[in-house]
Amino acid sequence: MKKVAVYPGTFDPITFGHIDVINKALKLFDKVIIAASDGANKNYLFNSLERVQLIKKALFVDLKFDKKKIEVISFTSLTTDLCKKYKSNIILRGLRAVSDFEYEFQLAGMNRKLNNNIETIFLMSDVENQIISSRFVKEIVRLKGDIKKFTTKSTIKSLKEKYE
Amino acid sequence: MKKVAVYPGTFDPITFGHIDVINKALKLFDKVIIAASDGANKNYLFNSLERVQLIKKALFVDLKFDKKKIEVISFTSLTTDLCKKYKSNIILRGLRAVSDFEYEFQLAGMNRKLNNNIETIFLMSDVENQIISSRFVKEIVRLKGDIKKFTTKSTIKSLKEKYE
Amino acid sequence: MKKVAVYPGTFDPITFGHIDVINKALKLFDKVIIAASDGANKNYLFNSLERVQLIKKALFVDLKFDKKKIEVISFTSLTTDLCKKYKSNIILRGLRAVSDFEYEFQLAGMNRKLNNNIETIFLMSDVENQIISSRFVKEIVRLKGDIKKFTTKSTIKSLKEKYE
Amino acid sequence: MKKVAVYPGTFDPITFGHIDVINKALKLFDKVIIAASDGANKNYLFNSLERVQLIKKALFVDLKFDKKKIEVISFTSLTTDLCKKYKSNIILRGLRAVSDFEYEFQLAGMNRKLNNNIETIFLMSDVENQIISSRFVKEIVRLKGDIKKFTTKSTIKSLKEKYE
Amino acid sequence: MKKVAVYPGTFDPITFGHIDVINKALKLFDKVIIAASDGANKNYLFNSLERVQLIKKALFVDLKFDKKKIEVISFTSLTTDLCKKYKSNIILRGLRAVSDFEYEFQLAGMNRKLNNNIETIFLMSDVENQIISSRFVKEIVRLKGDIKKFTTKSTIKSLKEKYE
Amino acid sequence: MKKVAVYPGTFDPITFGHIDVINKALKLFDKVIIAASDGANKNYLFNSLERVQLIKKALFVDLKFDKKKIEVISFTSLTTDLCKKYKSNIILRGLRAVSDFEYEFQLAGMNRKLNNNIETIFLMSDVENQIISSRFVKEIVRLKGDIKKFTTKSTIKSLKEKYE
Repeated sequence: MKKVAVYPGTFDPITFGHIDVINKALKLFDKVIIAASDGANKNYLFNSLERVQLIKKALFVDLKFDKKKIEVISFTSLTTDLCKKYKSNIILRGLRAVSDFEYEFQLAGMNRKLNNNIETIFLMSDVENQIISSRFVKEIVRLKGDIKKFTTKSTIKSLKEKYE
Repeated sequence: MKKVAVYPGTFDPITFGHIDVINKALKLFDKVIIAASDGANKNYLFNSLERVQLIKKALFVDLKFDKKKIEVISFTSLTTDLCKKYKSNIILRGLRAVSDFEYEFQLAGMNRKLNNNIETIFLMSDVENQIISSRFVKEIVRLKGDIKKFTTKSTIKSLKEKYE
Repeated sequence: MKKVAVYPGTFDPITFGHIDVINKALKLFDKVIIAASDGANKNYLFNSLERVQLIKKALFVDLKFDKKKIEVISFTSLTTDLCKKYKSNIILRGLRAVSDFEYEFQLAGMNRKLNNNIETIFLMSDVENQIISSRFVKEIVRLKGDIKKFTTKSTIKSLKEKYE
Repeated sequence: MKKVAVYPGTFDPITFGHIDVINKALKLFDKVIIAASDGANKNYLFNSLERVQLIKKALFVDLKFDKKKIEVISFTSLTTDLCKKYKSNIILRGLRAVSDFEYEFQLAGMNRKLNNNIETIFLMSDVENQIISSRFVKEIVRLKGDIKKFTTKSTIKSLKEKYE
Repeated sequence: MKKVAVYPGTFDPITFGHIDVINKALKLFDKVIIAASDGANKNYLFNSLERVQLIKKALFVDLKFDKKKIEVISFTSLTTDLCKKYKSNIILRGLRAVSDFEYEFQLAGMNRKLNNNIETIFLMSDVENQIISSRFVKEIVRLKGDIKKFTTKSTIKSLKEKYE
Repeated sequence: MKKVAVYPGTFDPITFGHIDVINKALKLFDKVIIAASDGANKNYLFNSLERVQLIKKALFVDLKFDKKKIEVISFTSLTTDLCKKYKSNIILRGLRAVSDFEYEFQLAGMNRKLNNNIETIFLMSDVENQIISSRFVKEIVRLKGDIKKFTTKSTIKSLKEKYE
């Protein structure tokens, strides 16, 4: 039973928090589809193409992850439709001790009403990575702080270019 | 002791989550005033007049609710002032297992400091309806998803027209 | 439409937190049934008869509440059966900013599955009373502390007698 | 990559809430080990042997689940040791909108410190089943209430015998 | 060991909730630096200079606080850099029963990764002040409500001028 | 202004989670009183004398902490009375992302009603230590697990002796 999991998110940009979840997922599933969402009326720092490039450089160049087990895409459809496209019945979400449970609870509940063959699986990243959020990483870079502990080399480089 | 309850909210648009709370309130109170708020600097999908129309069509046309026990208005005043206008000492709020309690706790606390004769009553919608949020309903319609399980026929029709 | 609300709880003993909820309920309903539960395998400080007496003394003697609008009983049945017995379709629960929501969410959900004509209504006590819990009141009395801010004269007297 | 998941719990007794999680897990993994814990100083209603029998009757007799994909055991070891014994790197936990996150957060964190090859995966049961808890089911049976909506026939029968 | 605490926040505008935390901090530390943040892309009602003036008038004119123990500034740097500048190893945060813990947990965790000599200390304002939020105070003034219970005279005056 | 903080808790037994809070407190205050509570009807693994000895061995023998800045006692009085005895106006509590906020919120609120000169200060332990709880440490030792990552050498030795 080949197990494919879809990991949707904004990834604006990718951080060690996301990478921790991806790392764990690779131990549990045969393939992980990392899907950068392209929602309307959201002001991203990086557009969806840039975000896909950042994820690829972080995983395959900086961290030498196994390309055969990972696919990186952007998407504008419903997540449940994306799963059907990739023959997956698993939506993967990172869980933090203080996740926004109202959002996660409703997102998983609505996705199930749309397609109850698809399950949302939550993976808890290591405690040390649970404090990392893209929002703070951008704020720290904007204020010239050091983010080496929060994301990979290539991502740091691109972030600094954005705020020059 | 004629019991009138004021049910303030955004209703942008009305969903089965709201309708569940209204249904329960009609069993407990003699009259329910559904009040669509018209707060400044909030980007609504439907303006307040449209939202009032949508609520009326959903309740009276789609679901045949009893018109005598329901009044639908929009308002720009303080909720406590609205209650005084309709001789009601009850503000009705829907409660979800993962409601935004910081908002509810402060809203109820501030309303009480403004007028401690008015009580905030919380009603818990059926668990199945707690996952429904206007925010996701709009996102699903935008992405051409099926929202039959989340709101009424006339509301679905108006939503689709908005996103054509 | 005569409105009767059932307010079930342990009341071991009654505090100003409970009394705040009762006070608010009397403004909203025609009658309030205060029901002290007598669950198995729970080690109460006061048995159910004593707790009923304490509630009566606190409300009618210390605070001169209107006896016509209040009934005080103990019960060992299902709360939903108790509601039927008193022709009430309202279970009243106090809500605190940090209530034990897992317990409240399941209790209300299970009660609804048992009888979906009966609604659970949550009333938020004034913020100042939300910190009062019977558990701490007993601990403070045991350690000879002053609990004048937390419950009524007759209850304080009975508590001190218990810990002599 | 044969996927085996260990689902530890008290199951005192099994309910539709547990069965919902098991059902979902069977769609995602090749085999599910249901492990009834036998912790010290915990007063169970059913001992561990009885609980194992109840789970088997509920799944294989009442609901005709596929025996080949399920194993039911009791255990007194560390969950991480149990995983090693069954060559599994997955601990499965049910997630509710208002789960006891302090317990889950620490349990998952401590298990990872004991063996960071083993991942805790959280599955969210359908909303309707999230309100079901063994604790309330036992309370309702004790008070002669109807629990048909909460667990299977054989479990109801055994519960009633316990409270005769 | 002279104790200096930095109290960063938006203070848009200052309320009795903030003032309660400042009051408590003055009992615990030798000096408190109140730092109004000037984050990018945030639409404040008052700009940072106005907010600094409002804080000074509220504390020193309206409430006669001791000027020697308080310094009021605005800042655009990282909070940890601000602490170094004022030789302080304490970041002070107000804690509410329903604070946004995801934000606080990540903010404190990220600050510690940036500089683990600096500690975040949380002070719980009196329960009565925990319901006060700048956001609601502005909404109530906009709707001509009375905010005497929520902030000081000079702040009320400036707020009304803004909404004329 | 000599700053003394009282750190009350059960410490049954002391863990790296407690030690992290103590470490941070020593950077902020001149002296820390570690007070092991001796509450009635609580079944501790170690009695209060043993717990005091364990804390002393862990801090002074295993970790060579500075004895001049630390005092270790057991107490059976109200925490507010204990503070008065040691001329301290600070109660120190560890804060976790998923602390039991109902307990902390009420404990701090009740202590303030008993003596509003005494402030409760919350310190957030490093994320890695937030998952450590005495309850799980005891369970893991009972099940012959390795707890080197959770507490100090002498504490491990005493725990193993208890479970032989």
